[in-house]
Amino acid sequence: MLARTPPPPYYAVVFCSVRSPDDAEGYTAAAERMMELAAAQPGYLGVDSARETVGITVSYWQNLEAIAAWRAHAEHTEVRRRGRERWYSAFELRVARVERAYSFGAQAPGAP
Amino acid sequence: MLARTPPPPYYAVVFCSVRSPDDAEGYTAAAERMMELAAAQPGYLGVDSARETVGITVSYWQNLEAIAAWRAHAEHTEVRRRGRERWYSAFELRVARVERAYSFGAQAPGAP
Repeated sequence: MLARTPPPPYYAVVFCSVRSPDDAEGYTAAAERMMELAAAQPGYLGVDSARETVGITVSYWQNLEAIAAWRAHAEHTEVRRRGRERWYSAFELRVARVERAYSFGAQAPGAP
Repeated sequence: MLARTPPPPYYAVVFCSVRSPDDAEGYTAAAERMMELAAAQPGYLGVDSARETVGITVSYWQNLEAIAAWRAHAEHTEVRRRGRERWYSAFELRVARVERAYSFGAQAPGAP
């Protein structure tokens, strides 16, 4: 249920957003498609995601080159454009280098 | 509604968790208290949080020293112990250096 990632270092893309009230159906379909497509990219390590008032999606990547390639993906680029036009009232995207990680519990990375 | 952070570099602590079914009331009270207490620590920059199946809390800090001091805070240490005993079935905590950030929209950092 939680993303299982290898030992650091690796990268996290932290995407925090506030949805506009528009086009819930189009947004959901695009979000599901992007999850599928991201998971098929080289260097993808996993994702965690939750939404209440604010939505947070954290995707994990082997290195900055993998993040740059995913950013340049044509379908992803088009979906980002629609996101700015229609689906989000605000977002903040952060690219961060994971330096330390600590797991607890049965669903932690590396657990059977 | 989204955390407003200064230009990078700074640090993010990404805490992804799965709740146990136990003690919802105690958990909620402790989570609110920790949000208050964290916000009063030196070097605290903000927080974003959401929970569905998985809960994600991302707190932002000026540097690793600020994170270490918050980790050593006595009340926070005691709450973490109770978290492992009672509130979480699993979690993953990642400490990451934010290298780049990109904002969009009216609630973005620096907006009026």
